[in-house]
Amino acid sequence: MSKDKQFVTEITPQSEDFSRWYIDVIKKAELMDYSPVRGCIVFRPEGYELWENIQRDLDRRFKETGHRNAYFPLFIPESFFQKEKEHVEGFNPELPWVTEAAGEKLEERLAVRPTSETMFGHMYSKWIQSYRDLPVLINQWANVVRWEKRTMPFLRTSEFLWQEGHTAHETEEEARKETMQMLDIYAQFVEEFLAIPVIKGEKTPSERFAGAVDTYSIEAMMKDGKAVQAGTSHYLGTKFAVAFDIKFLDRENTLQYVHTTSWGASTRLIGSLIMVHGDDRGLALPPKVAPTQVIMIPIGPAKMRDQVVGRVDELYAELKKAGVRVRVDDRADVSPGWKFNEYEMRGVPLRLELGPRDMENGQVVLVSRITGEKRIVQQANLVAEVEAFLAETQQEMYDRAKQFRNDNLRSVETLDEMKSFLEAKRGFVEAGWCGSAACEKQVKEETGATSRNIPFEPSEHKKSCLVCGDPAKHTVVFARAY
Amino acid sequence: MSKDKQFVTEITPQSEDFSRWYIDVIKKAELMDYSPVRGCIVFRPEGYELWENIQRDLDRRFKETGHRNAYFPLFIPESFFQKEKEHVEGFNPELPWVTEAAGEKLEERLAVRPTSETMFGHMYSKWIQSYRDLPVLINQWANVVRWEKRTMPFLRTSEFLWQEGHTAHETEEEARKETMQMLDIYAQFVEEFLAIPVIKGEKTPSERFAGAVDTYSIEAMMKDGKAVQAGTSHYLGTKFAVAFDIKFLDRENTLQYVHTTSWGASTRLIGSLIMVHGDDRGLALPPKVAPTQVIMIPIGPAKMRDQVVGRVDELYAELKKAGVRVRVDDRADVSPGWKFNEYEMRGVPLRLELGPRDMENGQVVLVSRITGEKRIVQQANLVAEVEAFLAETQQEMYDRAKQFRNDNLRSVETLDEMKSFLEAKRGFVEAGWCGSAACEKQVKEETGATSRNIPFEPSEHKKSCLVCGDPAKHTVVFARAY
Repeated sequence: MSKDKQFVTEITPQSEDFSRWYIDVIKKAELMDYSPVRGCIVFRPEGYELWENIQRDLDRRFKETGHRNAYFPLFIPESFFQKEKEHVEGFNPELPWVTEAAGEKLEERLAVRPTSETMFGHMYSKWIQSYRDLPVLINQWANVVRWEKRTMPFLRTSEFLWQEGHTAHETEEEARKETMQMLDIYAQFVEEFLAIPVIKGEKTPSERFAGAVDTYSIEAMMKDGKAVQAGTSHYLGTKFAVAFDIKFLDRENTLQYVHTTSWGASTRLIGSLIMVHGDDRGLALPPKVAPTQVIMIPIGPAKMRDQVVGRVDELYAELKKAGVRVRVDDRADVSPGWKFNEYEMRGVPLRLELGPRDMENGQVVLVSRITGEKRIVQQANLVAEVEAFLAETQQEMYDRAKQFRNDNLRSVETLDEMKSFLEAKRGFVEAGWCGSAACEKQVKEETGATSRNIPFEPSEHKKSCLVCGDPAKHTVVFARAY
Repeated sequence: MSKDKQFVTEITPQSEDFSRWYIDVIKKAELMDYSPVRGCIVFRPEGYELWENIQRDLDRRFKETGHRNAYFPLFIPESFFQKEKEHVEGFNPELPWVTEAAGEKLEERLAVRPTSETMFGHMYSKWIQSYRDLPVLINQWANVVRWEKRTMPFLRTSEFLWQEGHTAHETEEEARKETMQMLDIYAQFVEEFLAIPVIKGEKTPSERFAGAVDTYSIEAMMKDGKAVQAGTSHYLGTKFAVAFDIKFLDRENTLQYVHTTSWGASTRLIGSLIMVHGDDRGLALPPKVAPTQVIMIPIGPAKMRDQVVGRVDELYAELKKAGVRVRVDDRADVSPGWKFNEYEMRGVPLRLELGPRDMENGQVVLVSRITGEKRIVQQANLVAEVEAFLAETQQEMYDRAKQFRNDNLRSVETLDEMKSFLEAKRGFVEAGWCGSAACEKQVKEETGATSRNIPFEPSEHKKSCLVCGDPAKHTVVFARAY
């Protein structure tokens, strides 16, 4: 058992150093590795498969709401950024530039895309002539680059993977409806699929996307009380339409600018997943996103091995056929105890054990990664039992994350109250805000917390600004954020 | 009907100018558009969906053979290219360079990846220690960039999408087996899914991948007789292992270099698909890859419209439920004739017509895009009839493409014979070759044709070199190529 011990103690406890715990877990579970390029990581197969599962489910939701995928160029001419003033100011500090190609200096520098509003805008101006061409509902799965000074694997890397939706509409009303629809899709996806509760709301002006009229976000709480913005949806008004001359003849034969939206979610979701559900034993993956949902481990003396493994293989085939993502670890040179720890560390939601006595009784043992609950179930009902246990686990993980979030979200009246809460305990703060950038800035300077969003459903509507005491215009969620 | 006429005559006939036909078709069918970045295209939804279908099927084949996906950085440090001499010579002339980021000049230039052997090599050297870590079987779906002087949408663009597999093995034997397995997977995929017959074979040394020991390819014939390399698989020996120090302790506890392979297929496949199957009416898509397999068009007088559309919707639901990719075009302001032409131009394999008389008789009319064959089938058997017709269409398209390929592949004895064949008719030539680079070069200079590959199954084994008359070492397929 010394091997087990060593295994477990390689992960720094969360309480000791949350960031080190995070890095220990993602490296040990082989989700990623650092690359030789500053701020860029390698998504190893175990990590990339999480992304594939996220993609599959999100993509289905996009398509069900009428969107189609496309692919636009990686490079964006420098002049494109100049066309929308706020956009260039927001992104210029982070851009990498291609200045030479095939041995020659380029006439115009090309940015490696940080986001593609400008390129979509340029093409939409060619494609859209009439109201009959609207709406245009296109999404793109792509890599993007933002040269970050401080990076954190998955949560903030210079290159990352994401999807960016870009839509164009006849009217403001329709574009705003789309903006909210996509925010809802993100919220539903993150809650249902990743078992992460989120707070939906509108960003304050200082936190808006560069070039947006309004930005909305979903915000999730990590186990260290910090926030991750897990998805954003922007109503861009006619700003990009004006910048890129995207006009259409409306139903009255008048030339109008389109109203556009954009919305995105990225590989940050992987980081959130780990920080919301993981514990000192390692990863804990909700069944819906887990690459392996059930790990099957044969148990017992060597003389029974062939028989047990034979039965495990039969049950494996049944589960597989039912669509369960299942794997068998029947290595003879590794102890069951070592395997138990390994798959707990890797976050596999359910372990299935089968030994000689279970065979006699027509049973198997199922053990939950999250609760440790052990169920002895009949082999005859295996598929139904496993599916039910997985569904309960998914729900249990959501409930626990929500409980944690609620336990660590405090409604406060004053900046002092906020400070003492954040000193005692990390978490989110809900407070009144007068709407002035100065008060928002002061909160950030004194606490390190930024406004996350103005929640659509605050736990209560606050009366006065936590900083200046003036009447509150909004109730805002503040938190330190990744 | 004037609208129909105009529609059709916008496509240049293949016989008049094949390249113009190609551009006309892909623009008209909205598969792509030119972008403002030199040599880069936009994959519009109709074109990107072809890629999504290709991805889904290829990805399944990769996973069934034990490969997993991952994602490696877009940027590759300049020093990495220097490590493998042939590799740098091959790719240096095509590389775009990032020299500045976030307002600062980089210490080392970063290439935008043209392919990722070097980055995989670097990481594999960290991950592989022992024979127990082998084989490593990783694939990556990604964008790559090669700064091309002459471009052709889908077939040769500066940025393109592809997958690149990179594997590492204990022995040469195992790595060579992998190389051939992946070539076979490409061949099966292209023949079964895209209905394109291919010639499998080995590349001559002058056409090898930069850094490979051996390169294998599948070659397809376009309707203008030119070749497209539709997939390649490389045995890299220990070249990249030596360059990147990828060593492992073998079963005898001796330090050894791994043997690596790489293999790739790209969005070129979309170009091939169009050039192999398209005709003067537009695209023609094999059912397996077609985004829409069946287009349903209600027909008949206005007073019957609601009834007919109602029945069309019921049949639509049946087909959809059975997994057929089906769409309804029930627009009232567009004539059926215009729709017929539109979906023929877009290459939809089957058209389903339903009018009042069909309703009375419990029938529908199915029309094949390829053969024009019309079948009147019972609504009660609709799913089975459609599935059978689609399967036959898939086979028919493959058979026709194979017939065309065979009709335009000529076995020749001499360079003169080759020249007169290529003057009379475009196509592939099979000829004996002594193995000297000089003779291969002379063929290229005098005919514009390059050696495509040394086919595993030539139609006959040639005795003498077509240029010098010396005994033939190989039988080679030559062709002009995209």
